[in-house]
Amino acid sequence: MKNDLDQLMQANNLDSLLFTGPAQHNSPMYYMTGGGHMTGADLVKKRDEEPVLFYRPMERDAAAATGLKAKNLAEYEYKKLLKSVDGDHIQATALRYQKMLHDVGLTKGRMALYGKMDAGSAWGVFSALQALMPELTLVGEGPNSVLLEARATKDEKEVERIRHMGEVTVEVVERVAGYLTSRAVNAKEVLLREDGQPLTIGDVKSKINLWLAEAGVENPEGVIFASGRNAGVPHNSGEAKNLLRLGQTIVFDIFPCEAGGGYFYDFTRTWCLGYAPDDVQALYDDVYAVYEQIVSELEVNAHAPDLQKRTCELFEERGHKTIRQDSKLQSGYVHSLGHGLGVDIHERPRFGHGATEADKLAPGTVTTIEPGLYYPERGMGCRLENTFWVSPEGKIELLAQYPLDLVLKMK
Amino acid sequence: MKNDLDQLMQANNLDSLLFTGPAQHNSPMYYMTGGGHMTGADLVKKRDEEPVLFYRPMERDAAAATGLKAKNLAEYEYKKLLKSVDGDHIQATALRYQKMLHDVGLTKGRMALYGKMDAGSAWGVFSALQALMPELTLVGEGPNSVLLEARATKDEKEVERIRHMGEVTVEVVERVAGYLTSRAVNAKEVLLREDGQPLTIGDVKSKINLWLAEAGVENPEGVIFASGRNAGVPHNSGEAKNLLRLGQTIVFDIFPCEAGGGYFYDFTRTWCLGYAPDDVQALYDDVYAVYEQIVSELEVNAHAPDLQKRTCELFEERGHKTIRQDSKLQSGYVHSLGHGLGVDIHERPRFGHGATEADKLAPGTVTTIEPGLYYPERGMGCRLENTFWVSPEGKIELLAQYPLDLVLKMK
Repeated sequence: MKNDLDQLMQANNLDSLLFTGPAQHNSPMYYMTGGGHMTGADLVKKRDEEPVLFYRPMERDAAAATGLKAKNLAEYEYKKLLKSVDGDHIQATALRYQKMLHDVGLTKGRMALYGKMDAGSAWGVFSALQALMPELTLVGEGPNSVLLEARATKDEKEVERIRHMGEVTVEVVERVAGYLTSRAVNAKEVLLREDGQPLTIGDVKSKINLWLAEAGVENPEGVIFASGRNAGVPHNSGEAKNLLRLGQTIVFDIFPCEAGGGYFYDFTRTWCLGYAPDDVQALYDDVYAVYEQIVSELEVNAHAPDLQKRTCELFEERGHKTIRQDSKLQSGYVHSLGHGLGVDIHERPRFGHGATEADKLAPGTVTTIEPGLYYPERGMGCRLENTFWVSPEGKIELLAQYPLDLVLKMK
Repeated sequence: MKNDLDQLMQANNLDSLLFTGPAQHNSPMYYMTGGGHMTGADLVKKRDEEPVLFYRPMERDAAAATGLKAKNLAEYEYKKLLKSVDGDHIQATALRYQKMLHDVGLTKGRMALYGKMDAGSAWGVFSALQALMPELTLVGEGPNSVLLEARATKDEKEVERIRHMGEVTVEVVERVAGYLTSRAVNAKEVLLREDGQPLTIGDVKSKINLWLAEAGVENPEGVIFASGRNAGVPHNSGEAKNLLRLGQTIVFDIFPCEAGGGYFYDFTRTWCLGYAPDDVQALYDDVYAVYEQIVSELEVNAHAPDLQKRTCELFEERGHKTIRQDSKLQSGYVHSLGHGLGVDIHERPRFGHGATEADKLAPGTVTTIEPGLYYPERGMGCRLENTFWVSPEGKIELLAQYPLDLVLKMK
């Protein structure tokens, strides 16, 4: 949680944190500011002190709305700095950072960097800043950062926002199911639109986007609505021109976020419309059994990689190859059991490679559980995903209820 | 244009370019790949050679759809690399880059970096890579990069996509105008919703988002729909709870993009519903006159900062303070005349500080022209914005027609 930051900084020998970039669709800055229309800003947090936000003058209203201590970037006279270095934006930006950091009393110690940025600008500016301020050590922690560790556990307000996104998500899923099952079907078992034309995946995705917009949420990462062979490739998002047929496997993975780039939800169902062929039903039964088994075994403070290992065991017992046997596997159980989620769709805990001791179901964790099986060469795939919260009391709670059924009966 | 890249690399002494990050909502990678559901990838382009895309195995279908020469990142066995450096993701990622670059024959020369990335990861990984490969010089160019210079001019296909976004934009604007002017109004001149309740800016923004979604486009940066005093602050996006009243200034700035993070359009009108008070009309008349004058003077290869200077002159002649007189100005003409636009909402040419010789209306340029006046202390602001294309023949063409009128008559 955010109020763990000072302690985590202490434990990781960090004296300050620098955040940069827009406040929307930039999770580190969103997390610190609460979002708002700021197209570019900086925020400095010293250990055991309140953060200071540096805002662009045109965005002073959004900056004020954050309630944070704030300084106007115009005070640093970028234009003059730029002139002093013959129009070199990289050097001018580094000089401005030096002045800003001096202003908040930062001249030395270890400072970690966060926020979405152009890779070249980051490399250029921070190389220049490091040269200007040799007593300040710039730190790039990567995926084991104190920020991501703090964010892995959510406070009650954050959980309420994720829970609300879960409600919105299942409402939209219910509309999609209702729409699909009320379609007419032609002699080739192809679903038809209102106008009698064949219904395509593109049509369905348009409706999903519309219904998400009606609910006031965003869908920045798109939606996976993949059928047949495409359902057998986990991140294949589905082809717009494909038709929907009875008895075909559909993997429907939906992961919208609050407007402005806030909290996400993540949810997957695998559907067959009308009926399921026996081989699809058998595939589903294996995924369903493993899903139920794993969920029944979830415990507070369980180590996420142990859950991944257990999932592999369960799938192997059922005769499937798993990613722990072959890291390049493309048929069988080919991914991780889940991932934390919050202001990013993928957060800690990590279940797969590179997980550390911190990757566990600590109280406050919000995580997906999403076992799946993929056989692209057999034209099928199946994944079931829900999002869970570990309450402060250590209870594992499903954040949005929705049936796990494979077959959706046509009306 | 993209096919200028080799020549620009030559002129700027760059031997290779490295792009990283997702293919969606990450303009450098989108530009090179054409988008698609790739959540993380790398792309290397050597001078005078075709680019090579490195993709995640689960995203092999999206990678194949790009038509680019492609390599599977799984070949580099990240898990083993991670083990070899005791779980240090930063070091493991740098080692993987070293292997990938070796594979495409890259061991030395100057390599520029692009793509949206976490600032800390960029600093960490590229510092480590630079240490591993001292003969390779990593270059962070910042806003004067060869990529942004290439992107400043658009080919016919790109212009068609921007033009199409312009059509979608004015259709949605027309719907907004039609909706507002058909509202009932109460005794206090407040507009009413269908249900008789006062209409809020939040209501209007919901409709805008819905209509954009219906049109199949995205609105990742939000919309500015600001009234009264908020209209006097250029980047104030408007307060959801504010009511709409007759005679009040509304600045409506809309900048949607193609689904998946493609090409943008940018458009602003200033409206008064029903009637305009005299002081608002006078403010509008000044902005309109300057807009018309500047547009009439646009010429192929004009230097963008000269146009900004000319705009300041015109506003000063009319008695307004301008940003060239005071870079911290908050009342008067406080921003730049326009900006290029493409797969980012802000591209080159730059009109304000830091513009170079390259910031001109070269054939192929797509740019906004958006003069405005802001008087927050008087509760008003006004901006008029259209997007123009400089054709290969040097003709200046408005990409989407829509009336510039201030007053929208109520129906």
